[in-house]
Parts: sequence; structure tokens; C-alpha cells
Amino acid sequence: MPMSQRVITYTDAMGRWEPNAADRLREAAMELYLERGFEQTTVADIAERAGLTARTFFRYFADKREVLFGGAERLQAAMVTALESAPASASPIQAIAAALEAAAQLLTDHEFSQRRQSVITATAELRERELIKMASLSAALGGALRERVVPEPEASLAAEAGIAVFRVAFERWVAAAPEPSLGHVMRESLAQLKLLTSAG
Amino acid sequence: MPMSQRVITYTDAMGRWEPNAADRLREAAMELYLERGFEQTTVADIAERAGLTARTFFRYFADKREVLFGGAERLQAAMVTALESAPASASPIQAIAAALEAAAQLLTDHEFSQRRQSVITATAELRERELIKMASLSAALGGALRERVVPEPEASLAAEAGIAVFRVAFERWVAAAPEPSLGHVMRESLAQLKLLTSAG
Repeated sequence: MPMSQRVITYTDAMGRWEPNAADRLREAAMELYLERGFEQTTVADIAERAGLTARTFFRYFADKREVLFGGAERLQAAMVTALESAPASASPIQAIAAALEAAAQLLTDHEFSQRRQSVITATAELRERELIKMASLSAALGGALRERVVPEPEASLAAEAGIAVFRVAFERWVAAAPEPSLGHVMRESLAQLKLLTSAG
Repeated sequence: MPMSQRVITYTDAMGRWEPNAADRLREAAMELYLERGFEQTTVADIAERAGLTARTFFRYFADKREVLFGGAERLQAAMVTALESAPASASPIQAIAAALEAAAQLLTDHEFSQRRQSVITATAELRERELIKMASLSAALGGALRERVVPEPEASLAAEAGIAVFRVAFERWVAAAPEPSLGHVMRESLAQLKLLTSAG
């Protein structure tokens, strides 16, 4: 969260000022999702654990799923912008690599990513949501490649290959240590994909 | 449907023999899904259009979604078997290519595939189901590659790349003409992915 947002405070239903309410709610939600499971956790539970009210929760999150997926739009926007900003001479795969770099620059909180992954893996509804998010990301990258006048099916193939690398690299990074960074794992995975396809 | 199943007949609630009941139900369901939408169609509607009863419908399909996804298990089994049967000397991508060939041998009914794709594209619930099916296929192919002692992350990357090719090729084939065959479009798409990644 940017610094400017951190200093914004609100009064909750009790009339108190609540600094860092979003961070506290996010932390409380992650704790409860891991302890009890996502489905067994209510917004009231999250607010109670954070020492806040449900009303305060809904100032920051549309629902309890948004605690986990709130960053998806920002991630997609960052990846598309990076792809658009790649030099005109960049190949489709080089443009995709730029998008992956942008993702890695956003996804630096290894502990949050690890806990988030545990919660998502444990719940069918969330696994489906994650698949939809990835499909939307692939469509957005494919669209941005077509804007660079990459024809079909190359645009869709490059976008899908990029998502394949993203998915596999992210899972490897989350399952292992914070270092090497996600960016490193992504570059390595992309190189491995290139080797695999050239060997075939 | 195998010939042996075609000659099996059942009496429905009215006591009549009903030959080709599954084919008639499938055809009626596809017509209604395209006319009214998947969500607006009930099992009773499908049975009525086919001149059969809901009881007969449930002898063949667990629910109205299964008319569209009933072939998924057979497709996955065929792809995994082809991958397992690839020569020991085959590279991971060659083994994946064998799985794609097996898929193309099953998916020959262009008109059914085209109508099915229209129905799925129009309904969020079905698009999600299709994503889940593809994720399950990717996991199965990755698992079969690991059985061939392909290490990680190569196994997952090759499986995801295979699904990327499957997805893109299938969409191209469905959007165009029955010829060239899906197998041809798949081979072409795989060659394009190889070119893309080698150029990057």
C-alpha cells in the first residue's frame, strides 16, 4: 500500500480513529482463513479479530474474497503497461518477459504470497477465481500484443506461454525461499521453456 | 458413442422403447442451449424437446452440464495414455505433441465443437468449468511427464505449454472450417510456439 494511503484514518461505528485499518483487517483475515478455512470465516469474525467493525471492513473490501484478490487489477495493469512500453524492436516473447518483470516487481511479499497460496489451494471456489484471474491476464496480454501488431495465433500463443511461465515460476517461488526473487525464478523458467521447445 | 451402446434401448416412464435416446437428448440440449441460453434451459425442457422424459435424461447424464463436459474424462485419459506410450527417447515436448495428436483424433466433430464453444462462451459458469477442466488436464499431463522422469519445473512448463497450444489451436479450429483438421492446426500452433520462443 502506498504511504499516502497509510496515513488516512477513519472513525468506525464506535467513533474512534483507526489507523492502518486495511492492514489490520488483511492480517486478521489471513490468520482466520489459515486457522479455520476461508468458507468458515465471516466478515464479522475478521472485524472482531482486528478489533474493528464489519462496517469498517466494507470501507476497504467489497467482500472477504477481495482480501485475497484485491491486487489482481493492479497486477494486470502493471503487466500490460510494461508490455506496451517494451521497445518496438522487442519480439513478442521479449515483450512478455517485460510484463513478467513488472509482475515480479509488484509481488515481493513472499510471506503474504505463501499464506495466500495456502488459502487458495485449500478452497475450490478460490482456485476457480484464481484460474479466472489468470485467463483474464492472458487475454489482456494477448490483446496488448495485438496492439503491437503481433498477428494471431502468435499473440495468443505468446500470452499463454507467458502465463504458463508466470504460473509455474510463482508456484516454485512460493514453495521455496524468498531468495532468489520471483523475477529471478521467472527468468529461469522462461529460459527453461525456451530450451524445452527448442529441444522438441 | 460406440456401436454397442447405440443398440441398447430402455423403456421410459411411458413404457416405450427409446432408441438413440442419448443422441436425441444431446441434440435437443444443444438446440435449447443455443436458442434460450444454458441457464434458461431445464432438464424437463430438454426431455420434452427430445420427446423423452426427465427420468430418461438422468439415465445418461448426471445433470445438464454433463451434456457439454461428459467427454472430458475420456479426452484426458486418451491424452495421458498417448503421452505414456511415446517412445522413451521422446523429448518432453514430443511426448506432449503425442498427447495433442490423441486429442485431435477424438475431437473430430467440428459442428458439435462449434456449437459447444458458443454455449460455453456465453455462460460464465461454463467458462469457469472449462478453465477447471483445462487446469486438470495440465496437471495430469505434468504428472505423466514426471512419471517419465522429467524433472520439475520442466514437466509443469511442458504441460502448460501443451495446454496453451491446445487452447489456442482448438479456438482457431472451431472459429474456422472443419478442414484443416484439429490435428493440423495443433501441429502448426506448436511449430509457431517453438518459433516464438526461439526468436525471443
